[in-house]
Amino acid sequence: MAELTATISATMETLLESKKYSTLRDILSTLNGADIAALFEELPHNRISLLFRLLPKELAAETFVEMDGDVQEALIRSFSDSELKEIVDELYMDDAVDLVEEMPANVVKRILSQADPETRRLINEMLKYPDDSAGSIMTTEYVDLRPDMSTEDAIKHIRRTGIDKETVNVCYITDERRRLVGTVSLRDLILYPEDEVMEDIMETNVISVNTLEDQEKVAEQFAKYDFTAMPVVDGEGRLVGIVTVDDAIDVLKDEATEDMEKMAAITPSDKPYLKLSSWEIFKSRIPWLLLLMVSATFTGSILSHFEEALQTCIVLVSFVPMLMDTGGNSGGQASVTIIRGLSLHEIEFSDVFRVIWKEIRVALLCGLCLAVVNFGKLMLINNTGIWVALVVCLTLVATVFCAKLVGCTLPILAKKIGFDPAVMASPFITTIVDALSLLIYFKFAQLFLHL
Amino acid sequence: MAELTATISATMETLLESKKYSTLRDILSTLNGADIAALFEELPHNRISLLFRLLPKELAAETFVEMDGDVQEALIRSFSDSELKEIVDELYMDDAVDLVEEMPANVVKRILSQADPETRRLINEMLKYPDDSAGSIMTTEYVDLRPDMSTEDAIKHIRRTGIDKETVNVCYITDERRRLVGTVSLRDLILYPEDEVMEDIMETNVISVNTLEDQEKVAEQFAKYDFTAMPVVDGEGRLVGIVTVDDAIDVLKDEATEDMEKMAAITPSDKPYLKLSSWEIFKSRIPWLLLLMVSATFTGSILSHFEEALQTCIVLVSFVPMLMDTGGNSGGQASVTIIRGLSLHEIEFSDVFRVIWKEIRVALLCGLCLAVVNFGKLMLINNTGIWVALVVCLTLVATVFCAKLVGCTLPILAKKIGFDPAVMASPFITTIVDALSLLIYFKFAQLFLHL
Repeated sequence: MAELTATISATMETLLESKKYSTLRDILSTLNGADIAALFEELPHNRISLLFRLLPKELAAETFVEMDGDVQEALIRSFSDSELKEIVDELYMDDAVDLVEEMPANVVKRILSQADPETRRLINEMLKYPDDSAGSIMTTEYVDLRPDMSTEDAIKHIRRTGIDKETVNVCYITDERRRLVGTVSLRDLILYPEDEVMEDIMETNVISVNTLEDQEKVAEQFAKYDFTAMPVVDGEGRLVGIVTVDDAIDVLKDEATEDMEKMAAITPSDKPYLKLSSWEIFKSRIPWLLLLMVSATFTGSILSHFEEALQTCIVLVSFVPMLMDTGGNSGGQASVTIIRGLSLHEIEFSDVFRVIWKEIRVALLCGLCLAVVNFGKLMLINNTGIWVALVVCLTLVATVFCAKLVGCTLPILAKKIGFDPAVMASPFITTIVDALSLLIYFKFAQLFLHL
Repeated sequence: MAELTATISATMETLLESKKYSTLRDILSTLNGADIAALFEELPHNRISLLFRLLPKELAAETFVEMDGDVQEALIRSFSDSELKEIVDELYMDDAVDLVEEMPANVVKRILSQADPETRRLINEMLKYPDDSAGSIMTTEYVDLRPDMSTEDAIKHIRRTGIDKETVNVCYITDERRRLVGTVSLRDLILYPEDEVMEDIMETNVISVNTLEDQEKVAEQFAKYDFTAMPVVDGEGRLVGIVTVDDAIDVLKDEATEDMEKMAAITPSDKPYLKLSSWEIFKSRIPWLLLLMVSATFTGSILSHFEEALQTCIVLVSFVPMLMDTGGNSGGQASVTIIRGLSLHEIEFSDVFRVIWKEIRVALLCGLCLAVVNFGKLMLINNTGIWVALVVCLTLVATVFCAKLVGCTLPILAKKIGFDPAVMASPFITTIVDALSLLIYFKFAQLFLHL
């Protein structure tokens, strides 16, 4: 894929140099906005602005929204005022808002000055919604109809106003106070006779979200109800916009990425990895590494505390990595399963005892199985003698037990008190379980080996 | 949410006991299929079959597909043949195929015997596609038009046949050999004059996928091109079905869950956590725990190898957990970032040197920062003396360096040779980095402390 893009980009540069503009336009017109944007990524900025001008107006807007922020900025800087106005007029409202949010202040000023007054008002309105709220990702292009319209009126209304709407697959019925009272699909408008009235055929059981609703919750509603667009209403139930399914998909992908980053002890970032500078990556990773390093010194101090015991039976040291790793892995398995279950709402706080009971049984099964294998290995290969083997294997069972218990309860408790459960993943659990496993190890050693 | 569902379920049981069926029907009719299915989860199976019969036909089908496999099975067993036929007729083809795939053989036989011959043929056809292919998740309900139809003909055709189609927002134009040649949106059919011909207004730059394409790739296409449905063609370019965006969302969610499970060293499972038995959870976790436990004994043998050195300078032991944990966390950060980048196609094999160069710089920044903090702590709090502090801090820098390097290259190499990169996450990286960090530690100790 990457190689192919590079080849096509090279072809385009050759055509560009020999000024074969009409051939270029023909090639570009057969492509999709997302593909053209990917091609442009491979070209120098001055080439892009030349090629971009060859695109038909609608395709140009489609391509523009798919491009990275830095390319968009360079392009806007190369635009004349009238070129900029053309693009801004062609953008969907949610894309225009995204653009304004990403560009530096002087570019934003130019964009807003070229937008028509109504667009400018809407952009400013939408910028006020909190980050990651339904209001911040919604678009204001939708078709609204009145309850007393006939299907014929409705289709006429769509013909008159619907060209620019991002989605007219579903039309929204609002009353005289702009409150959302029902929905009608475009399919129904076509299938019903011309004189049917909206209020008779509309679906009145409308699921909508509030402007302030978290975008993650909105995306989950899409996954649950199989919608292609979700109406967004204000505090008084008035329709103010819609969220389309493509934005919901982006949110779902971003939230999964964020959870994975948090689970790996990284502060999440919006940008893709290759666009981040080393310094930015460093800043997203170092706080957690520092925190976990300092916490791990407690584990070290447990080892120091038992220094004398260790010196008399130094063979015990060689099992420390295995015990620590197995504890960390066992705890990580439980915590990641529970964190994902919580974020998909498959697990709720009320399930906490069911979860604990399940993990206890799993922990005993895993712990016993690991202990048996390890006991065999210690007796047959390492020849440690039965008492050391017993200490190691009992510790293993106890460690896995504690690890699973800590791993499954911490994320649920974190969520209950309003913390992000994703942070309670392997690195955090490992640090706690390491200390626990060493304490257990030395207690068993004192008991059975009389150190 | 869970509490609310329980309350409503209780109300419904009371209504059911007092035989207030019409009230119940009114309540249920205002709800969405997904919500009703969630309510039913709380009720005993015999209650469900009673309530289910109160639902209007279409809502019944909607609810049915949202229910869990065990509830579906219980319901089917309680259905008469004619009731079963009604439901099967109402199901979309992709949902019918999912149902057949999930049910035990004797239930499948009953379902197929009640389906009409054409449906039975289609189900059997679709069951032949490989698991997780586009063919296995597509539906056969779509609107196909001919290139020479006028918009008026097209709308008439939809009125005649379109009622049952899962999505008619986009119609597909096929030639006389059923090859896909273009698409027309329902919106365009309404907006264009009645006598426009399909081949003049259709979008000919059609993006489609092959029946055998991996469902993950299909879902990515949705995310890239912002579609609501994707046409699926066979080897000869003939249209055989469409994948709808709701299925793509499910695939994206499942794939993210699977990646997280693999990263936490768990064999992925289709079922939600609470539906899995302890034995099933045990089986998905124990192979990895065993593998990693055995690998970790190598790390232990490094410690054994340096037993004498340790005995003369036992204080070194107390820094082992901190070094191992920091190495594991650093490597985990790099690997999870790269694994996610690979699965979102933000990173390709050709980026390998850019990635390594970036991680080298990040590793040096992180390593130095951690070392400086640690050096201060060792000198001021632990009073270890300068040489031990030096050994620990140099090891820290070297460990973070190795961890980031191993963490970023292994997933890319794994993908290149056709392995799943998600397996190369923290647990695996940790095991490798543990051994490396101990080797480095003792080399530095021998060098500076002359053990």
